[in-house]
Amino acid sequence: MDREIVVALDAMGGDYAPVETVKGAVDAVSEQEHMRVILVGKEEAIRDELKKYTYDEKRIDVVNATQVIDMGDVPTKAVREKKDSSLVVAMRLVREKKADAVVSAGSTGAILVGGQLIVGRIKGIKRPALAPFIPSKKGFSLLIDCGANVDARPEHLVQFAQMGTVYFENVMKKKSPTVGIVNIGTEEEKGNQLVKDTYPLLKACKDINFIGSVEAREIPSGGADILVCEAFVGNVILKFFEGVAKTFLSCIKEGLLSSLRTKIGAVMVKPALKGLVKTFDVSSQGGAPLLGLKGLVVKAHGNSKSNEIKIAIGQCIAFQENSINDKLIEMIQDVDE
Amino acid sequence: MDREIVVALDAMGGDYAPVETVKGAVDAVSEQEHMRVILVGKEEAIRDELKKYTYDEKRIDVVNATQVIDMGDVPTKAVREKKDSSLVVAMRLVREKKADAVVSAGSTGAILVGGQLIVGRIKGIKRPALAPFIPSKKGFSLLIDCGANVDARPEHLVQFAQMGTVYFENVMKKKSPTVGIVNIGTEEEKGNQLVKDTYPLLKACKDINFIGSVEAREIPSGGADILVCEAFVGNVILKFFEGVAKTFLSCIKEGLLSSLRTKIGAVMVKPALKGLVKTFDVSSQGGAPLLGLKGLVVKAHGNSKSNEIKIAIGQCIAFQENSINDKLIEMIQDVDE
Repeated sequence: MDREIVVALDAMGGDYAPVETVKGAVDAVSEQEHMRVILVGKEEAIRDELKKYTYDEKRIDVVNATQVIDMGDVPTKAVREKKDSSLVVAMRLVREKKADAVVSAGSTGAILVGGQLIVGRIKGIKRPALAPFIPSKKGFSLLIDCGANVDARPEHLVQFAQMGTVYFENVMKKKSPTVGIVNIGTEEEKGNQLVKDTYPLLKACKDINFIGSVEAREIPSGGADILVCEAFVGNVILKFFEGVAKTFLSCIKEGLLSSLRTKIGAVMVKPALKGLVKTFDVSSQGGAPLLGLKGLVVKAHGNSKSNEIKIAIGQCIAFQENSINDKLIEMIQDVDE
Repeated sequence: MDREIVVALDAMGGDYAPVETVKGAVDAVSEQEHMRVILVGKEEAIRDELKKYTYDEKRIDVVNATQVIDMGDVPTKAVREKKDSSLVVAMRLVREKKADAVVSAGSTGAILVGGQLIVGRIKGIKRPALAPFIPSKKGFSLLIDCGANVDARPEHLVQFAQMGTVYFENVMKKKSPTVGIVNIGTEEEKGNQLVKDTYPLLKACKDINFIGSVEAREIPSGGADILVCEAFVGNVILKFFEGVAKTFLSCIKEGLLSSLRTKIGAVMVKPALKGLVKTFDVSSQGGAPLLGLKGLVVKAHGNSKSNEIKIAIGQCIAFQENSINDKLIEMIQDVDE
């Protein structure tokens, strides 16, 4: 039998907390065995929500935290000063090995800062990286880094490629996944200074399957399994994808409802288009792990509803079962030798 | 009567040259009055194509150029050494005032280098910028810079905002268009070093209507009329948009053809979806002008067919009629005073 995994959920993080976070936790333990969730946040509010559901009480705990980090708070200051905030308390549970993972839909900045200050980096990892999966026609690509380190250096990007490879191999069960660097052309001499400096290092790196530059145009068709980029660019890609998908789908919807004729047609094509909507819904792909920390930290989308929270909690199982962190530690030791 | 505008077309540039370039030129002069096109390239090949059509012979000239700049050529070297290439000869026609504008679907790098070396920068303009319109739900946004200057500095981005404002105002006929800087958050302290350094300069700039940061998520819904960004980011956005649109539409098509039921429905919804396809077809928005040069240089998409070439040629009229370059010169003089 698999060991039980314990996930600390920042119950106060996100646009719909604690209503949707609590529901997500209840749904997660209902669907998944061997999992326990610790809801961290204002106990009274959490218990009020919990009352609405029937669930296995042995598998949901509540840990009180009196403060909340707001989206407007300056991350470093908030993590340092709001010591009794739901996020900080949840992260402390991971540091103290009382939980294996923390999931939060709260402030990205605070999660990044807290991850480094409280959970801590794996020795040898220079910078942790935020690595969401994004949908493509072929399945999924891992976009790394997506917002953890703006103005990163070439050696950081190389580590992102290595961490991304370990993560992708184990979670997607694909040997030697392809690694591409996001670039504005496919020729080796193209790019900005960072890409030009990083390219030869990636080419020389033995533990990755580097296939060269990937133009942004090729990303939706599945240009590479792992897309390495600097955080600013990664964040722009992720959010732009979200925006384009949303606008597209709303335009399709408007088009389909524009006349009686299209409305009738819409009923007939709906099942086919529904699959598309699901495939390209970036926000439903669960959370993004912050790779390179001593425990698992998962950032869920700020506007997550219970379903996204449930998926993000569920993701922790694959991470744990595949001992991703042990493998990242092994990887970095091999490199250091 | 308006003065005739003369466009030098790089007849050998692009994936489908000279077949589609020549057809595009013929279509352009058929549709537009007061326009003359000079086809520059291998005369024999061009004349062979021209034979296929009936057109006003007074309005299409051919200027022979024996060389072609290939996509694989190193731009600086190619522009300097291939002095009798179609692109270089076409640009020389602009410098010598024998043409008002040059349109090319050839190598972006060579167009950028040639634009600066042959056509030349407007005095006071630090860097020319590639500025395509991209579709949004509200209409169009101008994305500047989209690939002309990687690793640009804050003062360059401020000039891009100013040039973009003049261009947008005159071509889109909208007073005081909004300017946003593409960023990874909307708070003023967010961003990479370049954005943080540029933000206060844009805020202090009097000739633009700066509205702050625009997250990539807001771009497709029309976050700002003018989107200022560094070339690497702009190029990623442009190409990613193209890729997402292409993948989306091919998935929709597959979905609609997946069963008899959806096929019947597809016939009914087709007109509604066709509008969407047209709206979000990034490549059909004509070419992107390289703003800040002494003459007009328009870069058309490498895979342009005759229709895109025709649109790109047609664009030159609005640029000329609105005396965009005179207004850019005025603008830069006002700033310098």
